[in-house]
Amino acid sequence: MPQFKRIAVVGAGLIGGSVLLAAARRQLAGSLAGWSRSPEARTLLQSYAVAEIFDNPVEAVRGADVVIVATPVDKMAETFRAIGPGLSPGALVTDAGSVKAAILIAAQELPPGVHFVGAHPMAGSEKAGSAHANAELFVNRPCFVTPTGQESPAAVQLTHALWQALGCRTVECSAQRHDEIVAAISHVPHASASALMLAVGSLPGFDPTSAGAGLKDATRIAAGEENLWVGILLANAPHVIAGLRAAEDQTAQLRKALEAGDAEKVHQLLADARVLRQSLDRPA
Amino acid sequence: MPQFKRIAVVGAGLIGGSVLLAAARRQLAGSLAGWSRSPEARTLLQSYAVAEIFDNPVEAVRGADVVIVATPVDKMAETFRAIGPGLSPGALVTDAGSVKAAILIAAQELPPGVHFVGAHPMAGSEKAGSAHANAELFVNRPCFVTPTGQESPAAVQLTHALWQALGCRTVECSAQRHDEIVAAISHVPHASASALMLAVGSLPGFDPTSAGAGLKDATRIAAGEENLWVGILLANAPHVIAGLRAAEDQTAQLRKALEAGDAEKVHQLLADARVLRQSLDRPA
Repeated sequence: MPQFKRIAVVGAGLIGGSVLLAAARRQLAGSLAGWSRSPEARTLLQSYAVAEIFDNPVEAVRGADVVIVATPVDKMAETFRAIGPGLSPGALVTDAGSVKAAILIAAQELPPGVHFVGAHPMAGSEKAGSAHANAELFVNRPCFVTPTGQESPAAVQLTHALWQALGCRTVECSAQRHDEIVAAISHVPHASASALMLAVGSLPGFDPTSAGAGLKDATRIAAGEENLWVGILLANAPHVIAGLRAAEDQTAQLRKALEAGDAEKVHQLLADARVLRQSLDRPA
Repeated sequence: MPQFKRIAVVGAGLIGGSVLLAAARRQLAGSLAGWSRSPEARTLLQSYAVAEIFDNPVEAVRGADVVIVATPVDKMAETFRAIGPGLSPGALVTDAGSVKAAILIAAQELPPGVHFVGAHPMAGSEKAGSAHANAELFVNRPCFVTPTGQESPAAVQLTHALWQALGCRTVECSAQRHDEIVAAISHVPHASASALMLAVGSLPGFDPTSAGAGLKDATRIAAGEENLWVGILLANAPHVIAGLRAAEDQTAQLRKALEAGDAEKVHQLLADARVLRQSLDRPA
């Protein structure tokens, strides 16, 4: 017997589409439902033939015991408001947003009697959209689960069980701690990669046809969909701003050492950076 | 009959070791010779059994019609001085350094009667050292050839032929233009990736065990060997400094847009960066 009665996915980009495919392949629910704002995405989802696809979010969530909201971060409050009338009392609502404190505030739009527990599967890609969805996207990816402490323990437990069943390794922490961590490991690198790409593109020596693996890797995430990332960066602005200031400071420190011809200082900065970078590849 | 009589490689890290392996596999020369400052590297090179390995650079270049200098950028002048007494009149000396204008000056240490033509195969890696050498390292990699215009046309022609025979696609431009290009596509990204790694490592949310592909890719080149990169960044300092200033400016612009909550400006910056980044993947 499947673990869940009916799972509804609201918003169907890379994450939402992949949740439907993963839940179908793993037979997690008696039935699956999906909604997307975009008619093209709805047609695509329908072609997967794994879920009932709706053009109305209220209908999509009706009768679901589990609802996963996977709309862009800056559309969350609007989405929570929209699905309210369709939600069943006692349903679990979770999300997949890349920030958590702002979404806790947005979740106040949900009606009383449903359980909300925030989550963030770290499974994004610069290849956005349900066209890139795949059933194995979540396998072995970390997924933050960020309860406030006010939820029923059963709802928190169920959130862990859901994301684990989709393939993730879950990690629990507060929304605030989550936002601090993802600023460092995701949002600041994303914003910095975009700034580096703009800077390199402005230099007289910029020649896209000569670019090698170094520049391509350093800026790969800057190819991400800006319509998703504007919302993420703004929703986590305090941490991202602090991180960008740190990036400006470190860049200026290295530049000043070069201006001074201070080989020892340049050596020390590059060596410290190398040691830090190598720590990312060490097994946890 | 091989294309060259005897090729000597002076300095045997990733590039020098790979030149020996590539020249051997392609049977480019009647004989091969190599020198490295490091006894460990000499032992390793000897174990490849493709070249006569010397512990003295003068002996290594004796009788060679082609000499490839592949020592670190900040050791070039010293190396050119050291090999002088062994060079045959009329020999071609080329190099593999990541900067070209500074090496032109260093090449004034060479004795009269030899031909120097600078070159730069874009085949580096964060995995430095002859232990990572491989015979196919240069295949389809761009190689800059940077004559001053004062060389004999035959020497320039021979330099193209050599690097092409090793597998490269050669591109000719001035040393000054080369340095401007590689600042944009290699040196500034390297320095920025190091600065980003230092910045991220200083943030309260930094957790190496949570780092995903985004941070890892954005900082991969920061794992490069600082003993090579200090010399490169200092030898190309004016262009690198200008590029780092541009990176600081673009980062500050994005940060200020976030501070102002200016979604439209953030959107525009991220969209511009995405378009530029996508231009790197377009076929030339």
